[in-house]
This record gives sequence, C-alpha cells and structure tokens, in this order.
Amino acid sequence: MTVAASILSGDRRALARGLSTIEAGGPDAVALLDQVWKSTGRARRIGVTGPSGAGKSTLVAGLLGLLRAEGKTAGVIAVDPTSPFTGGALLGDRHRMTREASDDGVFVRSLASRGSVGGLARAAPASLDLLDAAGFDVLIIETVGVGQSEVEVAATADTVVVVLSPESGDAVQAMKAGLIEIADVLCVNKADREGADELVAALESMLDLKAGAPWRPPVVSTTGTESATPLLEGLESHAKFLEQEDRLQARRRIGMAARLRALVADLVAERLLASADELLATEASAIAAGERSVLHAAERVVEEIVK
Amino acid sequence: MTVAASILSGDRRALARGLSTIEAGGPDAVALLDQVWKSTGRARRIGVTGPSGAGKSTLVAGLLGLLRAEGKTAGVIAVDPTSPFTGGALLGDRHRMTREASDDGVFVRSLASRGSVGGLARAAPASLDLLDAAGFDVLIIETVGVGQSEVEVAATADTVVVVLSPESGDAVQAMKAGLIEIADVLCVNKADREGADELVAALESMLDLKAGAPWRPPVVSTTGTESATPLLEGLESHAKFLEQEDRLQARRRIGMAARLRALVADLVAERLLASADELLATEASAIAAGERSVLHAAERVVEEIVK
Repeated sequence: MTVAASILSGDRRALARGLSTIEAGGPDAVALLDQVWKSTGRARRIGVTGPSGAGKSTLVAGLLGLLRAEGKTAGVIAVDPTSPFTGGALLGDRHRMTREASDDGVFVRSLASRGSVGGLARAAPASLDLLDAAGFDVLIIETVGVGQSEVEVAATADTVVVVLSPESGDAVQAMKAGLIEIADVLCVNKADREGADELVAALESMLDLKAGAPWRPPVVSTTGTESATPLLEGLESHAKFLEQEDRLQARRRIGMAARLRALVADLVAERLLASADELLATEASAIAAGERSVLHAAERVVEEIVK
Repeated sequence: MTVAASILSGDRRALARGLSTIEAGGPDAVALLDQVWKSTGRARRIGVTGPSGAGKSTLVAGLLGLLRAEGKTAGVIAVDPTSPFTGGALLGDRHRMTREASDDGVFVRSLASRGSVGGLARAAPASLDLLDAAGFDVLIIETVGVGQSEVEVAATADTVVVVLSPESGDAVQAMKAGLIEIADVLCVNKADREGADELVAALESMLDLKAGAPWRPPVVSTTGTESATPLLEGLESHAKFLEQEDRLQARRRIGMAARLRALVADLVAERLLASADELLATEASAIAAGERSVLHAAERVVEEIVK
C-alpha cells in the first residue's frame, strides 16, 4: 500500500510520515498531496489564535474533550517558532494536549516554522489538507496571534477564534494586531479573573463599530479546560451561518485562490533567483559604491531576469 | 530645493513627507532613495524587539534621553500592525515618546505594517535609510518580537536588543520565537520586579549553551526610563566589538545582500503575477474539481509564466 493509501485508510503512522514529507516540501510533498487531494475539503477547519499567555493550548485541549464526547475526531496543528536551542518546536505547551494523544480519535502535531515566513505559510495549510484527507471531522490550527504570517495562517480556517485573557491589556494588543478584524468568534479565556467583564464590554464596543456586517462575532467566556462549552456553542453558531447562502464554499474559494497565488509567488521567486547570483553580486557592489539604492538595484535585477 | 535636498539639509517636514513617499512605495520611493543613497550608512542602527508588554517603548524613551544627553541625535521607527478600526498605527504606546518629539534632535515615526508581510520588510529598512540620510547619529527600529517578519525586520540592525520582562514566562517565549538567537544584547527590563534574578540566570544558562561564539551577548538589567544606562553600556560594548576586524562592514554587506534578494523576489512575483489572472483562474477550477492539489497547480502556473 502506498503512503497515501495508508493515510486515507486511517493509518496514523503513515499520517505522521506524510506530515514530515509535507513539511520537508519539494516534489515528494507535491506528489503526496496530489494523491490525497480528492479526499480533502470534508473537515471543518478552525483557526485558534491570540496573544501568547491567553491560554490557547489549554482551551484547545478542552475543546478536544468536548468534540470527542460528541464522537467527533480531531486533528491539531500547533505552530511554534523554532528555537535554535532545540532545533525543533518546543514541546512544553503541547504536554497539556498529550493526554488526548493516546486517543486514536485525536492527532496533535507541532509544526516548527523554521524562521521562514514562506515555509510556514506553505506547510501549515498543506498539513491541514493531509489531516483532512486522513478523515478527521474537525481540524484545529493554533498559532500565536501577533506576527503577520502567524495571523494569516490562522485566518485560512473556516472559522477563526481569537482568544484573549483579561490580563495585560489583551484587548488593545488584539486591536493593534488586527485580530478583531479576522475573528469569527471572540473568546475571553480565564474569565474567572479580574477584568474579564470589562474585557467583554470592550470587545462588544469594538464590535459595535462594525455593526451592519452580515456576521457579528459572538463574545464567549471560558475558563480553560473546565468549560470550553461556550466556545463550542460559538463555533456551532458560526458553522450554521456559513451553511447559509453558499458562504462556506465562497470563503473557501477565495482562500484557495489566495493560497494558490502565494504559492506561485514563492515558487517564481525561488526559480528565477536560483540563476541570478552573478547579477545580484554585481548590483550589491553598485549599492555599496553608492551608485544606486537597493530599491533601484532590485528593479535592475528584475528587468534582467524577467523577460 | 528638491525634497531629497531638503531632507539632506535637515528639514524635518521634508523628512516626514519623504517617509510617506517611502511607505507608499513605487517609482517615487525608488527615485527618492536613489537621490539620498550616497548619504546613507553613517548612522548606527539598533533593533529593539521582544514580547509585547516587556516595556520596549518606555525603554526606548529612556535610551533617547541618554543619547540626547550625550549630544547625539536619534531617529526611531516603531512598527505597529494596523488596526482595522483606526486605519493606521495606534498611537497609544507612542505617547510616551512624544515628550522627546518636541526636541529637534529626536524624530519618531510609527509605521503601520498594513497586514502585508512584504510591505513591512520593504518599508521599514528603507525608512531607516531615509532617517540615516537625514543625518541622525543613531537609528532605532522597534518591533514586537513574536511574528517572524517582525523579528526579521529588527534583525536588520547593526545591534539587536531583545527586551524581556520577568513576567509571564518571557524567557520561554523568547526561546520559542528564536529571539535569543538574534540578540546581541539581552535586556531584562522591569528588573525591580519579582523573578528578575531568575530570568537573568536563565538567560545566562541559555547563553552558556552557545559558548565559544565570538560574541557573547551581555545580559543587562533595566527599569524602564529610570535607568537605561546599563543598556547603553551594552550597546557600546557591542559597538566596540563590531569595530574590530571589519565586522560591522561584513554584517552590513550580508544584510544588504539578503535585502536585495528579498526585494527582487517580491518584485519578480508581483511582475509575473500581474498577467497571470486567467491562468490562475483555470488552475483554481482544476483544484476545486479535485483534479490536482494546490501545490501541483502552483507548479503548473510557474511552468507557464517562467520561460
């Protein structure tokens, strides 16, 4: 049996191997994804993002418990920047999830972003595609919601949950990072702590400014693993919204077009730069000599390599 | 007098207009940077990054005070993600700096990243170039140290300061985000708070793992505006290190080559995608029909547009 066939038949070891292939990229990744492509698009994709310390991983663990209780299977991709000291994603935060990992209906994978913006944007959605093909009902992509690329990755989901905690001015941080803009569900976690009611009120006021949009994100309150139920309800209400008027299909169509475009941009640059070393060196000298700015030099290189 | 000439002569209003031109990009940005290019490369560039809440802006304000006391002029670019509610960079954090802004020897600019990774990486260093040409002695680029692109922007500086506070597990967050890796100076801010000594010890242990490198980042302790002096000393010690063995020039050469390459990659993709709409639409249909994966479709588009 091919790796692809094993993945489609539900073999978890094959899935783990397949994810490594996807992360490594290259022709093998393309071939593997092609073989399972027809089986993608069935799972519900949920993006969970928010500032570090908001309790995202704990909340996801709680959500997994509720989904399992409903008999649903779930796959999780957690994006951690690579630490140079471990050479891979740190597993600290993931430990809380490993209780669930012994359950065959749950699959958790940490994805190291390896410091490359393109790499993260390329590998994370493709990893979700593979989990999708493997037959999980729900897919969760968890990212730190501060960096642009991290936020963009979470925003590829069908439903985006932004998790905030009452501590440390999360509402202002979230506004700054453009998180409110991409939220389909706003989740105030650690809702038993001081300032939670104020945070909810602040979020509702922000949402009032956007009144009139077809979807108003519900603001739900949770306290970690103990009560992820309000979050699940928020997710279900957004799922119902998406079912109407072909909205889910439209959202996915737009997302896929953007993804294709980004991949093409990446590949085109890679391909054309591969043979431009000499040209780049010449222009670097001209920049250093003060003959022209780096912006001008870049345009000259582009003129040469794009016919 | 041209805008470029006015900027070079120290006209602050012309500088502000020039920065808007740079941020907008396009031919005007290229022309402007070309005209001032020979006057760049004189200022010392310092990148200040770290988790949100570590007190970066306050510390930068303190640093500005010390630099001014030494008679040095300074320009600051602060990168904030755009908030969809304000349509621009929020000014909250910047208010602390405005005390300095009435002083002609200090110039502070907030740069909205507008949600585009490429945009931020393009505009931030070019904005620094313009401040450089305007004659400031020291340039500071301040970014939130969590997202990949934000960290990369700070890392373009001659000296990178990573600011951490004893609260909320900053050491682990910093490790995860690869911040220790890029630090030339590690600054434990809010050093009067509980846990500061432990944080310093943890950082020193992490640095021990990298023993043998030509530069060991000093770990300095500060308490906001009150005592940025230890940070200034750390910066001076790194400056002395860079002066030896042509290190500053080597670092800048490598950084400029990377910057040129990234700009070319951006422009190439932009140029070739501009006329690929039909091709992209065809492939999007094939993806939706399950004929091929998005990775495969991207390769097909690239084959067509790269001759």
